[in-house]
Amino acid sequence: MADFVVTPWEVRGSVDYDELVRQFGTQRLDGGLAERLARTAGESHFMLRRNVFFSHRDLPQFLDAVERGRKVALYTGRGPSGSTHLGHLMPWVFTKYLQDAFGCELYFQMTDDEKYLFKENLTREETLAYARENALDLAALGFKPDKTKIIIDTQAIKRLYPLALDVAKKTTLSTARAIFGFDNSTNIGSVFFTSVQSAPALLPSVLEREKTGKKNAVVPVLIPCAIDQDPHFRLTRDVSDKLGYPKPALVHTRFLPSLRGGEKMSASDAESSIYTTDTPEDAERKVMRAFTGGRATVEEQRRLGGDPEVCSVCNYLKMFFEPDDAKLAERLRAYRAGEILDGENKQYLAGKVTAFLKEHQRKREQARKTIDKFFWEG
Amino acid sequence: MADFVVTPWEVRGSVDYDELVRQFGTQRLDGGLAERLARTAGESHFMLRRNVFFSHRDLPQFLDAVERGRKVALYTGRGPSGSTHLGHLMPWVFTKYLQDAFGCELYFQMTDDEKYLFKENLTREETLAYARENALDLAALGFKPDKTKIIIDTQAIKRLYPLALDVAKKTTLSTARAIFGFDNSTNIGSVFFTSVQSAPALLPSVLEREKTGKKNAVVPVLIPCAIDQDPHFRLTRDVSDKLGYPKPALVHTRFLPSLRGGEKMSASDAESSIYTTDTPEDAERKVMRAFTGGRATVEEQRRLGGDPEVCSVCNYLKMFFEPDDAKLAERLRAYRAGEILDGENKQYLAGKVTAFLKEHQRKREQARKTIDKFFWEG
Repeated sequence: MADFVVTPWEVRGSVDYDELVRQFGTQRLDGGLAERLARTAGESHFMLRRNVFFSHRDLPQFLDAVERGRKVALYTGRGPSGSTHLGHLMPWVFTKYLQDAFGCELYFQMTDDEKYLFKENLTREETLAYARENALDLAALGFKPDKTKIIIDTQAIKRLYPLALDVAKKTTLSTARAIFGFDNSTNIGSVFFTSVQSAPALLPSVLEREKTGKKNAVVPVLIPCAIDQDPHFRLTRDVSDKLGYPKPALVHTRFLPSLRGGEKMSASDAESSIYTTDTPEDAERKVMRAFTGGRATVEEQRRLGGDPEVCSVCNYLKMFFEPDDAKLAERLRAYRAGEILDGENKQYLAGKVTAFLKEHQRKREQARKTIDKFFWEG
Repeated sequence: MADFVVTPWEVRGSVDYDELVRQFGTQRLDGGLAERLARTAGESHFMLRRNVFFSHRDLPQFLDAVERGRKVALYTGRGPSGSTHLGHLMPWVFTKYLQDAFGCELYFQMTDDEKYLFKENLTREETLAYARENALDLAALGFKPDKTKIIIDTQAIKRLYPLALDVAKKTTLSTARAIFGFDNSTNIGSVFFTSVQSAPALLPSVLEREKTGKKNAVVPVLIPCAIDQDPHFRLTRDVSDKLGYPKPALVHTRFLPSLRGGEKMSASDAESSIYTTDTPEDAERKVMRAFTGGRATVEEQRRLGGDPEVCSVCNYLKMFFEPDDAKLAERLRAYRAGEILDGENKQYLAGKVTAFLKEHQRKREQARKTIDKFFWEG
């Protein structure tokens, strides 16, 4: 047994990504496939070059469709249970890159129903309010309303529910239990919810059929998401095939590590993550206190060098804040060689983080004026 | 073990209503309660006098509310999986009596989602079409659009879904399995569905809160329904209490027997039921072939008399077509005494049935013009 757990609702222990690929039955993003994606997109992305996106399902088939000039769509989302943190932004940044490259529509699902069902202490009003707040982060990243449908589940349910019923009718309790590990104490809304998360994967084809009158029209969909969401889409893929829709393709990201060390930022520990709503001062403080790959003393670190692999500061640079490969390589080399110490490394990251936050927060506030244009209810 | 099964989706074997009351944990409608209901309503109803409505939950509390002049509501519904038959009309006729008496609103749920989920061979389009067709029967019975909200689940889901989530969050898989007997092959939509059936029981209070701004306003609800629907509302009652809504009261009807003998008309056997869309000729033929309480020969029946208890013709008269107590008593006496034979008894019922159908079908067609006024989507 692996000593870690990854489900859509829990990430625990030290994640072994090789083992996870095996457990989930996905494919590694290797053998030139990352390069092919970059080629099809017309330019590369540092998250591809650095294996931040590391796993996939049926990506070649999706790229075939793009290369043949077929209409395609992107789908990703967010469980709105609190403020957005940088770990959430990671797949969104990558999705923006793909959308710009393919010129296609993005379906972005805000699962306010899910977060209400799975979080004992959250009310419906709270998860809906978070959905609307979190949407500002999406707009701040530069997504455009004419190509982006933000779907808040409870608001767009009239459109989603029929598709969710289609999925649910084809999904037995035993399948749902096997995939998600539900037990007798799970509430029945949580059991059903995966059907609602499947719906947007079918929606592009449904809308295309309605628009063109072609009953068998299909729009291939790619879902960029964190690997913990894969179980939902494993189910979606099985069922969509039975329902006459194309299986959605996936490309999976690793988790942005916790600033306190360990695998994933934790919503219950505000110090482990940087939120898009943190003041630059708070963010700087979190960075300056971050877990690093340094040594016990300055003398030791100069002599032995730091370990960038376990260093959350280095990982933040690698996975999010230093897109320039040459600069990153030089910094990691210097860190490893003991030429750069933690203090300076943290200052460097803090500068990047505060600059990002100031700009993001400015755009985020601007987005309040236009955000309603993104919401789609069908 | 009882040798019958009653669930919302299956009625099998010979139903022992005393045993069912014990199994379900409901109360008999006895000890003067039927008379109290009639008194509160201002007039009696033959379905009360004849114990067709035979069981209840918390009816006295509901009547208390009516007698105190509080705002109350009625809620019943239909699973639209085919044409309406007389067995479906029975609780609707009684609901009409209650609505006229109390002057209150009726919430009528059409569970097109349920029928799609539970019936392998029905499509969503079909159950929605049945919902709209079945609604005509409701209008034909004289319900008025200004006091009657017909709620088709897939159409009104934006209003129902939040309440369904509230119920679902408080309902564990183990509770749902215990109440409904779901197994691993049950689809996850069917597991969730009971939450959607609960929603209209909370809706009158929700709408009253919205209208008055009073956060704790409650509107007591009475649900007249066939006894097989009780398991849903057992669940609703447990949960509504936790959510701060009044527990809905219930009053349960027996099943209208099959014309072929046995407990309940069967949707899979068109000869066992009379549909509101049957031609008068078809209906007459069904009556003339009905299972009766007669004897092997005319001579024997004249000598020994018939058995009205097992006679579907007598039961149709008792439960639906002969509201006049004196006429019914005389007819049953004469049947028991061998003075009336099956042929004449069938002719008598057939006359009632065809007269009812002609009038009902005329009103049903008229209703096509106004039916849209009944549909409520929130």
